[in-house]
Amino acid sequence: MRTEDLDTPFLAVDAGVLERNLTDGADRARRRGLAWRPHAKTHKSVAVARRQLAHGAAGLTLATVAEAEVFAAAGVDDLFLAYPVWAAGGRADRLRALAGRVRLRIGVDSVAGADRLAAALRGAPAQVLVEVDSGHHRTGVDPGDAGGLAARARAAGLAVAGVFTFPGHAYAPGARAAAAADEVAALSAAAAGLAAAGIEPLVRSGGSSPTEDLSPDLPDRWAPTESRPGVSVFGDAQQVELDAAGFDRCALTAVATVVHARPGHAVLDAGSKTLGADRAPWASGYGRLPGHPDARVTALSEHHATVAFGDEPVPEPGSRVRVVPNHVCSAVNLADHLVVLSGDGAGGDTVVDRWPVDARGANT
Amino acid sequence: MRTEDLDTPFLAVDAGVLERNLTDGADRARRRGLAWRPHAKTHKSVAVARRQLAHGAAGLTLATVAEAEVFAAAGVDDLFLAYPVWAAGGRADRLRALAGRVRLRIGVDSVAGADRLAAALRGAPAQVLVEVDSGHHRTGVDPGDAGGLAARARAAGLAVAGVFTFPGHAYAPGARAAAAADEVAALSAAAAGLAAAGIEPLVRSGGSSPTEDLSPDLPDRWAPTESRPGVSVFGDAQQVELDAAGFDRCALTAVATVVHARPGHAVLDAGSKTLGADRAPWASGYGRLPGHPDARVTALSEHHATVAFGDEPVPEPGSRVRVVPNHVCSAVNLADHLVVLSGDGAGGDTVVDRWPVDARGANT
Repeated sequence: MRTEDLDTPFLAVDAGVLERNLTDGADRARRRGLAWRPHAKTHKSVAVARRQLAHGAAGLTLATVAEAEVFAAAGVDDLFLAYPVWAAGGRADRLRALAGRVRLRIGVDSVAGADRLAAALRGAPAQVLVEVDSGHHRTGVDPGDAGGLAARARAAGLAVAGVFTFPGHAYAPGARAAAAADEVAALSAAAAGLAAAGIEPLVRSGGSSPTEDLSPDLPDRWAPTESRPGVSVFGDAQQVELDAAGFDRCALTAVATVVHARPGHAVLDAGSKTLGADRAPWASGYGRLPGHPDARVTALSEHHATVAFGDEPVPEPGSRVRVVPNHVCSAVNLADHLVVLSGDGAGGDTVVDRWPVDARGANT
Repeated sequence: MRTEDLDTPFLAVDAGVLERNLTDGADRARRRGLAWRPHAKTHKSVAVARRQLAHGAAGLTLATVAEAEVFAAAGVDDLFLAYPVWAAGGRADRLRALAGRVRLRIGVDSVAGADRLAAALRGAPAQVLVEVDSGHHRTGVDPGDAGGLAARARAAGLAVAGVFTFPGHAYAPGARAAAAADEVAALSAAAAGLAAAGIEPLVRSGGSSPTEDLSPDLPDRWAPTESRPGVSVFGDAQQVELDAAGFDRCALTAVATVVHARPGHAVLDAGSKTLGADRAPWASGYGRLPGHPDARVTALSEHHATVAFGDEPVPEPGSRVRVVPNHVCSAVNLADHLVVLSGDGAGGDTVVDRWPVDARGANT
């Protein structure tokens, strides 16, 4: 079967580019001496997770209990919930069941959250990592408060194994290097705080796709031990525009049809319900077209992407074009499955497989 | 069952508010003498569609063939595909099958698209409406070109029944009244063009949620005959910020848990994978909290919404809050089902039903 046989829009994964991204992702962590624990929120796919594990991933990172349940059911047995989970109600029971089934780590960033988690686990064998704010200012405690929180969590009955952070402030033009340095500094300071409180900070977990390729010297006693990139398994337009990857690293594209053309512009049938509506303030549009690097997606509706082609010829109605989503995690979460294309690394058109997005919509 | 028994995040529909929106939507069209053909892309739910039809909807509007297939399978027999469908490959066969099954109208906005559609239908009994650009500059032809395109479509063998437009430029502060006037003018001019070409423009279809409540005088011979609002069945934060609706018209909210609190800010577990990432340039944030009208969602990640509470007390971790998404159509398309709450009109907490989002992800 070829892509022409499939009605657009759909998400296609180039198996060759994916394979190269997997190899390089594993190598990059290995060169830095880090455990590689990719974030499965990006692909939500058991097929991709198995490939990550085959390439040497130490386990998976997840954002929700529901995601963790999907991968645990598929036999992945080492999971880190990198989120300050609020372990109440049904979620408490689900977490306890999960802890009885897999090697589980869970994020904590407040005393209330730690108390709640301890009550939920009732001694079930999970470890916790204290979340630290390294500059993104989303969740996490100040590095200087990590030791105190770790001590409170331990007093509540939790097994504290270390610290983690997400340097999300790397997602801005020119910010990658500074964010990578912030990340290392925050993990180190937080780990020192745990050590001062008498808790061995065995795990110092960081990483994001824009920072994973940077290699700050890691001489510190409490340097990172683990990297958790998500997006880089597929790449996306934001990574391209942050200079964190090239189009040759974009394994996933939306295949779309031109439904309307006028001078300078075309409208595609892949809108926000296919690509996702994410647009960082610095993004040049709502996605990019690798085959038309100067084109910009200037407007997005649910089923329309308006593309400005500038001086380039505008593709005719009925033409197919490929769009790299701005944020691949959002696009994948809109699809029931990913169409896998033969791995010639150049967007080959032969459909070789179809992978379900197993954890699509797994938000709870 | 009460909402407390459900793990967050989830989308909840207040049955009382929905009922009021349905009654008012039907009344509004009736008062203007318009057929009411709500856009099902908003709810994607057979249960909601049945309620719209019971309140007097003439049929449904859809954006994709896949959506139309879902509602046709549920027995809805009058469908308008308000989109310049490119009827090639498998989609051609699917359209022809649909035309043999329900009363079907399809949008056309180019000669190439009309030729393709005629070839796809092979005489199957569908009508087409010419799409006109009334100022949104997305798809559609200039009103002055509608007659010529209609004549070409008829020559290709299509049954041309009229014209339609979407005044999407109403989605800007202060733009509603002018967009509503543009809509009426564009439909009238286009219809006159069809008449001049010897084609009776029986259907003049317009409508958007921000313009449906406006009532420009419709004295013209070619005034609109049909209204196609989508969002207003549920309401959303964009409608509130455009002054097109109040929070009392927001039937759908995301129920979320506070997972992190610090002075002035809380972080919720409903992020872009629950609320959608839509943010118009003029929006005040990524959604609104009806219970905290001065609060703003200042940042959104996949599973984090950062809320600034200003001088207000910040809810404690574990508290539940409700968030009205910016764009309800995107939020609904992320969910597998909608939790229906008892219709006390005040966000009652008793769960009375659970409606599947039948056409979720139906993009092709």
